[in-house]
Amino acid sequence: MGKGRVTIPTDLDVVPQTLEMIEEWGADAIRDCDGTEFPQKLKDTGAKIYATYYTTRKDNAWAKAHPEEIQQMYIMTSFHTAVADTLEIHLMDHLYPNMLAVNTRDDIRRWWEVMDRTTGEPVLTDQWSYEEETGNVVILSAKRFHEYTVSFLAYIMWDPVHMYNAVVNDWKDVEPQITFDVRQPKTRAHSLERLRRFLDTHEYVNVVRFTTFFHQFTLVFDELAREKYVDWFGYSASVSPYILEQFEKEVGYPFRPEYIIDQGYMNNTYRIPSKEFKDFQAFQRREVAKLAKEMVDIVHEYGKEAMMFMGDHWIGMEPFMDEFASIGLDAVVGSVGNGATLRLFSDIKNVKYTEGRFLPYFFPDTFHEGGDPVKEAKVNWVTARRAILRSPIQRIGYGGYLKLALKFPDFVQYIKEVCEEFRTLYDNIQGTTPYCVKRVAVLNCWGKMRSWGNHMVHHAIYYKQNYSYFGIIEALSGAPFDVSFISFDDIKADKDLLKKFDVVINVGDADTAQSGGENWIDETIITAVREFVYNGGGFIGVGEPAAHQWQGRFIQLDDVLGVEEEHGFNLNTDKYNWEEHRDHFILKDAEGEVDFGEGKKNIYALPETEILIQKDQEVQMAVKTFGKGRGVYISGLPYSFKNSRVLYRAVLWSASAEEELHCWYSTNYNVEVHAYVKNGKYCVVNNTYEPQDTVVYRGDGSSFRLHMEANEIKWYQI
Amino acid sequence: MGKGRVTIPTDLDVVPQTLEMIEEWGADAIRDCDGTEFPQKLKDTGAKIYATYYTTRKDNAWAKAHPEEIQQMYIMTSFHTAVADTLEIHLMDHLYPNMLAVNTRDDIRRWWEVMDRTTGEPVLTDQWSYEEETGNVVILSAKRFHEYTVSFLAYIMWDPVHMYNAVVNDWKDVEPQITFDVRQPKTRAHSLERLRRFLDTHEYVNVVRFTTFFHQFTLVFDELAREKYVDWFGYSASVSPYILEQFEKEVGYPFRPEYIIDQGYMNNTYRIPSKEFKDFQAFQRREVAKLAKEMVDIVHEYGKEAMMFMGDHWIGMEPFMDEFASIGLDAVVGSVGNGATLRLFSDIKNVKYTEGRFLPYFFPDTFHEGGDPVKEAKVNWVTARRAILRSPIQRIGYGGYLKLALKFPDFVQYIKEVCEEFRTLYDNIQGTTPYCVKRVAVLNCWGKMRSWGNHMVHHAIYYKQNYSYFGIIEALSGAPFDVSFISFDDIKADKDLLKKFDVVINVGDADTAQSGGENWIDETIITAVREFVYNGGGFIGVGEPAAHQWQGRFIQLDDVLGVEEEHGFNLNTDKYNWEEHRDHFILKDAEGEVDFGEGKKNIYALPETEILIQKDQEVQMAVKTFGKGRGVYISGLPYSFKNSRVLYRAVLWSASAEEELHCWYSTNYNVEVHAYVKNGKYCVVNNTYEPQDTVVYRGDGSSFRLHMEANEIKWYQI
Repeated sequence: MGKGRVTIPTDLDVVPQTLEMIEEWGADAIRDCDGTEFPQKLKDTGAKIYATYYTTRKDNAWAKAHPEEIQQMYIMTSFHTAVADTLEIHLMDHLYPNMLAVNTRDDIRRWWEVMDRTTGEPVLTDQWSYEEETGNVVILSAKRFHEYTVSFLAYIMWDPVHMYNAVVNDWKDVEPQITFDVRQPKTRAHSLERLRRFLDTHEYVNVVRFTTFFHQFTLVFDELAREKYVDWFGYSASVSPYILEQFEKEVGYPFRPEYIIDQGYMNNTYRIPSKEFKDFQAFQRREVAKLAKEMVDIVHEYGKEAMMFMGDHWIGMEPFMDEFASIGLDAVVGSVGNGATLRLFSDIKNVKYTEGRFLPYFFPDTFHEGGDPVKEAKVNWVTARRAILRSPIQRIGYGGYLKLALKFPDFVQYIKEVCEEFRTLYDNIQGTTPYCVKRVAVLNCWGKMRSWGNHMVHHAIYYKQNYSYFGIIEALSGAPFDVSFISFDDIKADKDLLKKFDVVINVGDADTAQSGGENWIDETIITAVREFVYNGGGFIGVGEPAAHQWQGRFIQLDDVLGVEEEHGFNLNTDKYNWEEHRDHFILKDAEGEVDFGEGKKNIYALPETEILIQKDQEVQMAVKTFGKGRGVYISGLPYSFKNSRVLYRAVLWSASAEEELHCWYSTNYNVEVHAYVKNGKYCVVNNTYEPQDTVVYRGDGSSFRLHMEANEIKWYQI
Repeated sequence: MGKGRVTIPTDLDVVPQTLEMIEEWGADAIRDCDGTEFPQKLKDTGAKIYATYYTTRKDNAWAKAHPEEIQQMYIMTSFHTAVADTLEIHLMDHLYPNMLAVNTRDDIRRWWEVMDRTTGEPVLTDQWSYEEETGNVVILSAKRFHEYTVSFLAYIMWDPVHMYNAVVNDWKDVEPQITFDVRQPKTRAHSLERLRRFLDTHEYVNVVRFTTFFHQFTLVFDELAREKYVDWFGYSASVSPYILEQFEKEVGYPFRPEYIIDQGYMNNTYRIPSKEFKDFQAFQRREVAKLAKEMVDIVHEYGKEAMMFMGDHWIGMEPFMDEFASIGLDAVVGSVGNGATLRLFSDIKNVKYTEGRFLPYFFPDTFHEGGDPVKEAKVNWVTARRAILRSPIQRIGYGGYLKLALKFPDFVQYIKEVCEEFRTLYDNIQGTTPYCVKRVAVLNCWGKMRSWGNHMVHHAIYYKQNYSYFGIIEALSGAPFDVSFISFDDIKADKDLLKKFDVVINVGDADTAQSGGENWIDETIITAVREFVYNGGGFIGVGEPAAHQWQGRFIQLDDVLGVEEEHGFNLNTDKYNWEEHRDHFILKDAEGEVDFGEGKKNIYALPETEILIQKDQEVQMAVKTFGKGRGVYISGLPYSFKNSRVLYRAVLWSASAEEELHCWYSTNYNVEVHAYVKNGKYCVVNNTYEPQDTVVYRGDGSSFRLHMEANEIKWYQI
């Protein structure tokens, strides 16, 4: 029985049991109990002690004393149609009244914007006013039957995560925690001092776990306290006139609320980012990193480690961007939803270690009579394990109320096995890079900044409109590829960039940041991609790849992908190419139907294209050669083990590497093989909850039959 | 037994039977036998004799003697990607070699265009050349990985309809009939003279039936003689340098091939028409009408009637446009595919009569051992009858080989009944306008020019991508509404136009001419439509109505329709409005599921919208009020009797006229009621092939139970 690499929660009422669990699970770190004295007995275990630290809240006294430095966010009202010459718009309609307070302290004519959404023009500031008593903006000379919106600043009077916890857990009489803006001068000084005070009074703490730094991702509630708007990547709650004035100075052009408001779309990750928003993000990254470094330095001054929880107030931190390295963080901990969310933090460089918080939380929603926490734990572990085997984390951990978990002995036993399995895995991998069959680049507007976050709106949440695309990302998170995320700007900056890859993947709906929109009619980009494929590269397009209506085509890579989407413009053209080729290499393991998820309607194949699957004359999968290279079109590919195999074969085929199939390979797609050649190890994992039989191929092409128990992982020497 | 209003075909080998059928069916007109002496016995019947006249073909001697005046058409090659500095494009690739001949007679540098489809710019004429011997255009300084197309002129060496007939009927050793261009000077003079010669030698002919005038709709065949491209409304075969130079002079700007080529889309009816193409159509309408008038005048000079067959070379005639009236045609005959195709000619004003050519043609494909011509005839008649009852034609007719029909006595008997039923119908209607419940306008980019032709690519042909939209047009063709087709330009030209209607319908996919694209962000149009609804009008949007991505919305009439389409940009916004209201007035007769055809994906309702039907959180039908008016969203509505009723109720509801339901109304939607109030008559029709029971409401709200036999029509006195 090993020890280490495991963090567990504790509480005042379970001190002896905590000691027991430290033994049982081999834990070497304990999470602080929030707001109480930490028990001496636990201090004496030798386990590291983590303390959760809230940079932006839990200090209402300060916030109330400095209301002008409460964190602000930009909000846009809904659309209002003028039906008379005067139009009144109530700003707080459909917003939770206790959460937000309209900011009239700063000059509203400078920081608000009333937009005529029919013309797209702002209304002149002398043509509207705000009535404090009614809470309405009044547009005095509205144009009849034009639509209007108001963009305004509001103070965050109840921290959205605190509010969420209060609402979900039905907390009574809780005082809303106000979010203050650490970036502003007085609060900045106070916050640095406050951190020192915390460190002074928590000498037993080894690791300060920041939750997180300064700016909450966008999260707003409606009048019924229901979630109204959420963007895990949203920057709209990271603003204040104070920093926007700095921003203006830096970029040299005047700020407009519309740069944040973005027609009401708030620059979510589906929006093709504007220059101004990219400028703003860059500004925030630099400023946030600078201030975060100050805090981290203070933690280090006290001889403690600084850990970032990736969530809550993590906006501006951008762990895959250069500024992040300068902060000097020791560790990042992230919540594990699936493979992609694991790699969101396991792929972070420039920290000493990353830690995954696994599900289920020890909360009553799972740990109640009749609950099945083992099942949830298994699904979470097995789903994430694929990704860990590709990009290991260094630690695992659990959260919640330990005493709840203790009531489920089979759960305690299962977690013991997981901890053991993780330690073995970690020891076997020893930080080596696993064998990668191909170098794959996912191409979109965001590139590395949103690595693994593609088609993710809120952390690992299902959306009907994107699971068929997110499936590609999830499949990649555990696939034996060297995966990069690149942007169109990267191609423009480096002509030779694509030479670094074997296969480029573009996945998403037309005219979104994921697919790329008008980037595809940029001469530099389209010719670079064509040249890449022509010279032997692979291109896999999913959904509406390379799509933008222009010069007689919707799918711009017609020569590479060989498909087009019918919008009525091509009905005149007779289409004779409907024959399926289901015996193709890509489909060899996909018996029966392939699940394309939502798929795409109205896709047809050009004459020289080979259709693999069409349904009712709508192409779901097709392939084409272009020069020495190959293109693959897929309408959508939700995550499943079978689809993961389909994608794997598509990557190999598009890279003209069919003959490399039988290398660290399992014939049964429910079982995967990962090799750590440098380290002389390889493992075989059964991803399912049933036993599996397979034939395993080694790196030299030799093979053996293997029976695997449910979820089993087997390690071998090469 | 009545007589008249019926035209039949004849042949030399069935003269006595023709006489018999004239009696049996009460026919009063006979169609000429092509290319043979007309029998004296038939001349003596007193029946009118129709002669088919081909204006543009059947005179190869002339065509060969004047090759420069053979009709030309613009063709665009497929897309070719340059992979080296030189790119060669073979013009005749995938075109039927005997049908087209590249025109190098005229200055190719003026009339051709080599397009860089990557940049959208034409290639300078000194950078490409045409090699006669290879048939290739050679681009000498091609940009690598740009795509290129060539737009060129070709002579029509085999009339497409003649070729079609030859291929379909497997004619052997037929000499391709060359299409000559009657608009050009020598051929024009020759054609007028040729017409006179024909009239001189066919004195027994009463009606000259033109097939049609000068320009064939676009129809091209591929190298395997299969249809390659068809556009029943296409103008691309109506060009020649001769007329394009005239066009240039008229419009005052230089012509470009791209005005016709349109990125390869050839200005089909789904394309939002450009100014230049609208200019060209207007020019052609005027010029074609002028020349057609000359021909019609000659026919009149000979004391004969001039009839136009609506098809084949009908391009430029545009029967719903003003120029048409000036031609002085006596009649139009059209092929009956369904209700909409019937109204394509039954709605024509300014002719003495219209005649419908009904199916089946007396051809061996239907009239063979085991064939069921009665069934086909019934479907065709019953389908068209709805439309005839709204907009009567004056005559019906049949075509093909009479002797084939005679072998099917039950068919002869059924047609006899149809003829009788038609005459009764005609007598009862006597040209009065039927009672119209509401004034409905279909709004798109084409307006009245493409009345009833919306979502029609080739005459009454099914397309998976448009049957769900065409269903609306077909339903309207037999519905008790006063239907107009209006364009966005009409609204811009007349602020008060919409006041003439109760309900506006917009149906189609986003950014097509049917839906309207960027017209919806035109301030004048969007405010006019909003004002119309706000003041009490109804708006029915089908598919992606009023859709164009702009200022935070895709569906621009969010306030009227209350729906939006998810493209990823709104995933952040929580959607709580999913409750269905299936008990709505609109759905009262629609038991079970409604068939939305292809429907639409990813439509969601705004908070104030009432959803009638959603499937898996995709809204299929929803309603909303806006001021005194109402909006209805429908994802698609293929034609069926049930859906026709759904649309009927949607029109009434959107016009706030639910209480007008029980007026000339049948509770059973398979049965319809049409009232001719001025004439004191009304009829009840069973549109199905089974008996039906219903309750019929008269205009005063009184009602009675009624049993109808299959297909039955019953006439009543008011």
